[in-house]
Amino acid sequence: MTNLAGLYPPIPTPFDADERIDFTKLEANLQYWTSQPLDGVVMPGSNSEAAFLSQSERIEVWEHTAPVLKAAGKRFIAGTGAETTAETIHLTTLAAEMGAVATLVLPPYFYKASLTHDALVAHYRAVADASPIPVLLYNVPAFTGVDFALATFLALADHPQIVGVKDSSSNVVKMVEVLAERPDFQVFAGTGSALLPFLSVGAVGGIMALANVAAAPLRALMNAYQDGDIATARRIQHAVSGLNSAITARFGVSGLKYAMDQIGIYGGPTRRPLLPLGAPARAEIDRLLAHVQAAT
Amino acid sequence: MTNLAGLYPPIPTPFDADERIDFTKLEANLQYWTSQPLDGVVMPGSNSEAAFLSQSERIEVWEHTAPVLKAAGKRFIAGTGAETTAETIHLTTLAAEMGAVATLVLPPYFYKASLTHDALVAHYRAVADASPIPVLLYNVPAFTGVDFALATFLALADHPQIVGVKDSSSNVVKMVEVLAERPDFQVFAGTGSALLPFLSVGAVGGIMALANVAAAPLRALMNAYQDGDIATARRIQHAVSGLNSAITARFGVSGLKYAMDQIGIYGGPTRRPLLPLGAPARAEIDRLLAHVQAAT
Amino acid sequence: MTNLAGLYPPIPTPFDADERIDFTKLEANLQYWTSQPLDGVVMPGSNSEAAFLSQSERIEVWEHTAPVLKAAGKRFIAGTGAETTAETIHLTTLAAEMGAVATLVLPPYFYKASLTHDALVAHYRAVADASPIPVLLYNVPAFTGVDFALATFLALADHPQIVGVKDSSSNVVKMVEVLAERPDFQVFAGTGSALLPFLSVGAVGGIMALANVAAAPLRALMNAYQDGDIATARRIQHAVSGLNSAITARFGVSGLKYAMDQIGIYGGPTRRPLLPLGAPARAEIDRLLAHVQAAT
Amino acid sequence: MTNLAGLYPPIPTPFDADERIDFTKLEANLQYWTSQPLDGVVMPGSNSEAAFLSQSERIEVWEHTAPVLKAAGKRFIAGTGAETTAETIHLTTLAAEMGAVATLVLPPYFYKASLTHDALVAHYRAVADASPIPVLLYNVPAFTGVDFALATFLALADHPQIVGVKDSSSNVVKMVEVLAERPDFQVFAGTGSALLPFLSVGAVGGIMALANVAAAPLRALMNAYQDGDIATARRIQHAVSGLNSAITARFGVSGLKYAMDQIGIYGGPTRRPLLPLGAPARAEIDRLLAHVQAAT
Repeated sequence: MTNLAGLYPPIPTPFDADERIDFTKLEANLQYWTSQPLDGVVMPGSNSEAAFLSQSERIEVWEHTAPVLKAAGKRFIAGTGAETTAETIHLTTLAAEMGAVATLVLPPYFYKASLTHDALVAHYRAVADASPIPVLLYNVPAFTGVDFALATFLALADHPQIVGVKDSSSNVVKMVEVLAERPDFQVFAGTGSALLPFLSVGAVGGIMALANVAAAPLRALMNAYQDGDIATARRIQHAVSGLNSAITARFGVSGLKYAMDQIGIYGGPTRRPLLPLGAPARAEIDRLLAHVQAAT
Repeated sequence: MTNLAGLYPPIPTPFDADERIDFTKLEANLQYWTSQPLDGVVMPGSNSEAAFLSQSERIEVWEHTAPVLKAAGKRFIAGTGAETTAETIHLTTLAAEMGAVATLVLPPYFYKASLTHDALVAHYRAVADASPIPVLLYNVPAFTGVDFALATFLALADHPQIVGVKDSSSNVVKMVEVLAERPDFQVFAGTGSALLPFLSVGAVGGIMALANVAAAPLRALMNAYQDGDIATARRIQHAVSGLNSAITARFGVSGLKYAMDQIGIYGGPTRRPLLPLGAPARAEIDRLLAHVQAAT
Repeated sequence: MTNLAGLYPPIPTPFDADERIDFTKLEANLQYWTSQPLDGVVMPGSNSEAAFLSQSERIEVWEHTAPVLKAAGKRFIAGTGAETTAETIHLTTLAAEMGAVATLVLPPYFYKASLTHDALVAHYRAVADASPIPVLLYNVPAFTGVDFALATFLALADHPQIVGVKDSSSNVVKMVEVLAERPDFQVFAGTGSALLPFLSVGAVGGIMALANVAAAPLRALMNAYQDGDIATARRIQHAVSGLNSAITARFGVSGLKYAMDQIGIYGGPTRRPLLPLGAPARAEIDRLLAHVQAAT
Repeated sequence: MTNLAGLYPPIPTPFDADERIDFTKLEANLQYWTSQPLDGVVMPGSNSEAAFLSQSERIEVWEHTAPVLKAAGKRFIAGTGAETTAETIHLTTLAAEMGAVATLVLPPYFYKASLTHDALVAHYRAVADASPIPVLLYNVPAFTGVDFALATFLALADHPQIVGVKDSSSNVVKMVEVLAERPDFQVFAGTGSALLPFLSVGAVGGIMALANVAAAPLRALMNAYQDGDIATARRIQHAVSGLNSAITARFGVSGLKYAMDQIGIYGGPTRRPLLPLGAPARAEIDRLLAHVQAAT
């Protein structure tokens, strides 16, 4: 089974003032991320405004992302979830051809009431059957309104091509239950403040917005944990939690992009309907960035 | 202000066994619907598997739908909601060019936490500013996880080009509050079992899955209500409620398409991940169709 | 079957400045309510701060309420729901002895996950088996977190002693489905803004906070509806909706008590932890009371 | 500040076949628990069917519990939350007089919409001002529908008499944020499967149903963690997770009481409306008890 253990940011898509993708900025950002203690990137994820990209834009982004990562010896994990099974398979196959080593698959979510255990299992099995590369499930009920049940995780973990999950619900209880049954399932914390608790119960890494702007402290946390220095890991976990909340739950992608601008890479505007941050939110993020820098 | 009062089905998209759109079936179905006591159709809506259509498929469907409706003297209301403001404007402009008399605009919904009152108001105002045709809001929290607040409805109702709402949440209390402030706002019941209660507080019609397969009883209900024959209206409302539930909340689009097959038009399969109905669901729908026929 | 059709307020419990029940004020208020176009009262309901009363206080309130209502020829409906089946039976039996003509039974709600269809059906059947008086179900998920399923309503409607429901969820679609199966089930709107839509589908009345302070317009609405004057009914429904929202969803029992003080009966303070209203809320209620007076 | 760090079961209330409290069984159970590697007990908590006890029953239980714990040198933490501020203060004062070393205070929860940040803060401050003993907050949204916001936790942590929280929501992200701001706040995991992840971010122990029937492995987990043997801690955490789920989320208090019967102490029946377990649930718990025994 492919071992994907590590730390990955789902990277934002840079837009110019007219909301067009700025590929030059994307490549510059990739140069930054490949210089950081990261194992690769996920593209696109929720933080990439994936929901705002057309199919052709998604592919174009891959065309620009894949070679940079390959040259740097970093893993390219593609986000290939779509509302239909057929489109998800199509994107997955394409991503594999373009060099993705694995795929992170958001579930369909519009027809929530119809996305029963049976429907989700049939969908993901069809995708995994067709996928040339390992599949990671992606559970993010705050965006999708779909929350994988324990039984669904366990049924899907039976498939040899489904190797793990990014859980952004931070339901550490459910993850303990998954790992108790499937200790080899590759669980990734889906948000920065859940990294240490997830590691403590057997997670193998993190796929998280915070890794875009704080790769070094998150890597230090993981190293400390692996060295048995739980006190240091805890100290870092506390130090980054405020910033993590600001660039995810509190201020969303706009917050993350603002933080990127502040650390010297390109964040830029979001596409509408997302709104730019007001001054208080910006000041709050400035304060939290400084706090992370001082404390880690 | 354009008066859109009336009864409209959001029509399913017919797929063949390979999940491709079957335009011949679509046109045959349109011949049926234009022969029914309907004021037009909405295309695409949630029941059209709109979430499963690419942008080009949506446009192709309009190309086939618009002329048939025009020839029959029926209204074409286009579904043009998309995740970005820009794409929603693009689709709305296009639909107007193709003959749509109004547009039903699903809100963006992936980044729920960021879709505050301010973000929704800015989004819809931008769309309405750009729209050559009247805009109907579309509130369907069961699918989107976004539920318009009263204040959001009232702020948007101020815009001259935003003329009404299809409310599928069936929140009759909120609709009373909207209509108390804006008696001319054109409220449409979004599900068949809410038609009479919505009419009683000032709604002007219905945009509902049930109208695909039970236009005659729904029209009879509306006529009875307008004639002051509330007892007949109530009797019909009760008679259709079981079928309505079966083809929406209980069995979803698969249920609606099965019912279409049973009344002699083309339902056919859904796209995956939606699953076909099992035998018990089919038998239940058979029973409920017979009940409507017997009772109305 | 006992016909309970009509209009009832769940009456607030008057407290003095030390949070003790003021029975003199209660009796004065009852003199007011019995002079209004009401069919009786419910005591205690959610608006009575029922959750804040001890068992002995509840009984004491009944001792003061029952004789006043009897003397006035009005119905006394007792609120007897408790967390255990045994206590609910005990209170129900007692209320019947004290003259209650029916009981409104809030479900148990702390152990939500255990309150399955089977548990609710067993609970209510045991209560109804033991009850000397007809039982009304009480569905108010905003307070209890328990929302009766259609199947639960239908199973319970089979019991000869369970005669109806106060539905405060305003789920008019579910009520249509209940009434389609059980046209004789006595459905009561549970909030003032749902009265007309509920009547339109077969409800027999209302049990609502608004009836404490606006009995006359609500009665006028019911009369207009019964006379077939739906336009007048709708006009009144719109006129009262703002006030209804203010004294329920927006400002809660504190809002209701403030409105009572303004119309010349005793509202007084709530028990803590409920907080008194701030000045903007008070001004808003003043405005809405004036609006109802002007418009009805 | 009183250091309450440790492991505590919220102990079930034993009922006889007529649903009366069996104090002999209670004392026998207490003999068992005081012989286990526990730091004390909480009485009553959610698992004690606290919602089913009258005020006088609660006090009677304390009268039987306090002396046994005192004799054994174990801590007695009283559950004193009630719907009103006044009653909560009354119970807290009484519990302190009877020997409780701390109190675990469930919030009011019926009037959810009115239990704003301000109302919760005013309530808990009034309780803490009056309390002779340290106060632990109790966050259990699955039962109460009230979920403390981060800002509420932080505002309350300012009060010198509010020393910590039992968080049964298992929201490890929120707890990280609390602990980042207030490293001395005494956080307790509220369910057995969250123990290790909570410890990893700075929790000081657990207050959990599972401690009633699996004190030894939970203590071993805590010891292993404190010794830096995270692998052993993780192994135990996995081993107990299935049983934990069965006696809490899946089968509730009925499941916990059945498990108690199986390990040789008295579980007995619950009060109604809780239902006894069916055979499949019993077999599942048998299997999970055996698994814990074999694996730890």
